[in-house]
Amino acid sequence: MHSISAEIISIGDELLIGQVVNTNASWMAQVLNHAGITVVQVTTVRDDRQAITDSVTAAMTRADVVLTTGGLGPTKDDITKTVLCDYFHTQLVEDERVHEHVLNLYKNRPDVLNRLTATQWLVPEAATILPNRVGSAPVMAFEQNKSGKLLVSMPGVPHEMQVAMSEQVLPYMQKHFGLCADVIHRTIVVYGIPESSLALRIEAWEKALPATMHLAYLPKQGVVRLRLSSYGEATAAEVEQQITALMPLIADHVIATDDLTPQQILGHWLTEHKLTIATAESCTGGRLASLLNEQSGSSAYYMGSVVAYDNSVKEHVLGVRAETLATVGAVSEQTVREMAEGVRQLLHTDYAIATSGVAGPTGGTPDKPVGTVWIAWATPEGTTAECCHFFGDRMQITNTAAMAAIGKLLLQIMPQERKIY
Amino acid sequence: MHSISAEIISIGDELLIGQVVNTNASWMAQVLNHAGITVVQVTTVRDDRQAITDSVTAAMTRADVVLTTGGLGPTKDDITKTVLCDYFHTQLVEDERVHEHVLNLYKNRPDVLNRLTATQWLVPEAATILPNRVGSAPVMAFEQNKSGKLLVSMPGVPHEMQVAMSEQVLPYMQKHFGLCADVIHRTIVVYGIPESSLALRIEAWEKALPATMHLAYLPKQGVVRLRLSSYGEATAAEVEQQITALMPLIADHVIATDDLTPQQILGHWLTEHKLTIATAESCTGGRLASLLNEQSGSSAYYMGSVVAYDNSVKEHVLGVRAETLATVGAVSEQTVREMAEGVRQLLHTDYAIATSGVAGPTGGTPDKPVGTVWIAWATPEGTTAECCHFFGDRMQITNTAAMAAIGKLLLQIMPQERKIY
Repeated sequence: MHSISAEIISIGDELLIGQVVNTNASWMAQVLNHAGITVVQVTTVRDDRQAITDSVTAAMTRADVVLTTGGLGPTKDDITKTVLCDYFHTQLVEDERVHEHVLNLYKNRPDVLNRLTATQWLVPEAATILPNRVGSAPVMAFEQNKSGKLLVSMPGVPHEMQVAMSEQVLPYMQKHFGLCADVIHRTIVVYGIPESSLALRIEAWEKALPATMHLAYLPKQGVVRLRLSSYGEATAAEVEQQITALMPLIADHVIATDDLTPQQILGHWLTEHKLTIATAESCTGGRLASLLNEQSGSSAYYMGSVVAYDNSVKEHVLGVRAETLATVGAVSEQTVREMAEGVRQLLHTDYAIATSGVAGPTGGTPDKPVGTVWIAWATPEGTTAECCHFFGDRMQITNTAAMAAIGKLLLQIMPQERKIY
Repeated sequence: MHSISAEIISIGDELLIGQVVNTNASWMAQVLNHAGITVVQVTTVRDDRQAITDSVTAAMTRADVVLTTGGLGPTKDDITKTVLCDYFHTQLVEDERVHEHVLNLYKNRPDVLNRLTATQWLVPEAATILPNRVGSAPVMAFEQNKSGKLLVSMPGVPHEMQVAMSEQVLPYMQKHFGLCADVIHRTIVVYGIPESSLALRIEAWEKALPATMHLAYLPKQGVVRLRLSSYGEATAAEVEQQITALMPLIADHVIATDDLTPQQILGHWLTEHKLTIATAESCTGGRLASLLNEQSGSSAYYMGSVVAYDNSVKEHVLGVRAETLATVGAVSEQTVREMAEGVRQLLHTDYAIATSGVAGPTGGTPDKPVGTVWIAWATPEGTTAECCHFFGDRMQITNTAAMAAIGKLLLQIMPQERKIY
């Protein structure tokens, strides 16, 4: 199969003053990569005629498909549409379908409609217009004469871009380039082993992989997603065979055999077993609760948290003994154990997690340097605790500690056969 | 003053498969913009010789200074240093200072040192080597013959890049280009008014600004930072005069007259007045606690939070009356009032904030659609509550609601004279 290459051009002054982080480009890169399309470059340019024209010209010589986002709003600094008209030697014409769609979208907002009049339903004559289900700016696909190369222009609003990309642009590209739809991905989620050690452990297996399959390591906050992909050349059974050979090598670190976050895996597991959980947080300061509530439906198993930042809260709400705090201090095994057991009892849950540590940048001591975090897990079978050491700034330590609290619980409770969720 | 233009080149395969979001580029853009340097383009390329060379060549024709990050590690896919040697017609030589620095950095980690040997202290002969205080990869500044243009290569690890940029690269650039150091920025932080309404309100003032000053609107999650800047042409007194004229126009929405986040402003205010705060969260699920604990030193005023996700926690821990929950439900004025007062009493604080709402995507009703959030503030003067409506996905609603809980408290408690912190 010929591999398709893509470039992304992000358009907008706001990206070049650092006001907005370019999350669109990474989201698109991930989706394209997942579909077997290689992203070779991302370019961010201002709302400037020359800069947009130059970047489009350069990208069209390098890549099979160029995806632009931004510059499609109704205000005068949004110029992408007219620049693309010039580049593709075409002109703006009224589009009845877009007109109707915009009227319908803003039927209850005549004030918005006024400002939009006469620009949003003007589209380049030579472009194929793809529906923008959730916004007013049209999604436009241009085909370059003869070369078969594509340029697709999308709005910069993340939600509009994501809906357009998933529902319209990807299927359009797959059809245009004749991409096989039977891309296969199998993801194994691993926790508690550094990427490099993991690579060494599965080195022989990885080297023996057939050329039709590709393995990617996707590490984040201590979690590594191992993704085995085939772009239409291997059968599902062949991919499964490799997964079966891989599993015994890493079973002690696998937390999921499907592409889910640790908090999703825990959520599924608790829901399925009709179990509940609570948290008691000191140094993670609400981040652990936040993570556990990210997905809809968390109210089925997540009862709540006591963020016990002050020692008096640890003592009077969670029931940590004054003696414990006075003798071994807040950042200690005994304290997190009492916190976990205390919140489990207070909120009547099956499971409870507690954290206490030094998030920094101040507060470190030679004994307990910044990054020292005690975590305890109270379960129906008893309570365990572990002292962890994390690196980075206050936010990184908080995030990694919260993720560890979930990841290490999964390693404890997931059955050896590593059920597929 | 001649305005200096910059381009950023981010190097690394991980950025083009969407595994890592390019936060380096936005951080650098913000810092450069702040120093009066205009970023005209950001390019992200693979660890590929041709791609790096092409992007450097193009950027050097357009901008006065090109800043690259990434590709400086010791492994074989890190090729930036050798590519730059070729581009600037120079060769790698050993640098004694870098050698010593690396030996010192890893004196307790002989295992790391082995892998690094012989690459990290090899530097391009023609480059000026700037110290990398917190990492092993050297920071390299190349001066282009005759043109006076610069290329500076930095490591891609965010923390290393940020330290190098702040301590070394910016001062180096300022000296090289003779940039005036007396850049003046004055930031007013505004809450509770949309950007467009704010712009209309201060339209006449903004139009009358002298050409030596520039105003920027920096909106995020309901907070707008208004930044008035002068790059060496206006005096501090002249800038202050404009701020004095601006203040009466927007005083009812100002939450700070310095460049701080709402949570920092609240933290400073509470610390100064020796007051304490607690939170009781339902729909924000720990996000509010997380925000309040972002800055070091929060333990001085932040006592803790009860994340009362389940109604039984609202009732039994926070003391919300069963009758309230049974009659008006969890998402109601009465419930958030009782939550705020309950947690204020439980944790013995001066202030307390409570949230309860529908974060979605499920759980909405015609009466209380997704995005409906009740917020209550219990203070020594009494309790107030407000029903808010937020837009976006679950995470956006949670984040914006948590920010509103802080922003709206600030509007209530900040003195009319808007003290400067």
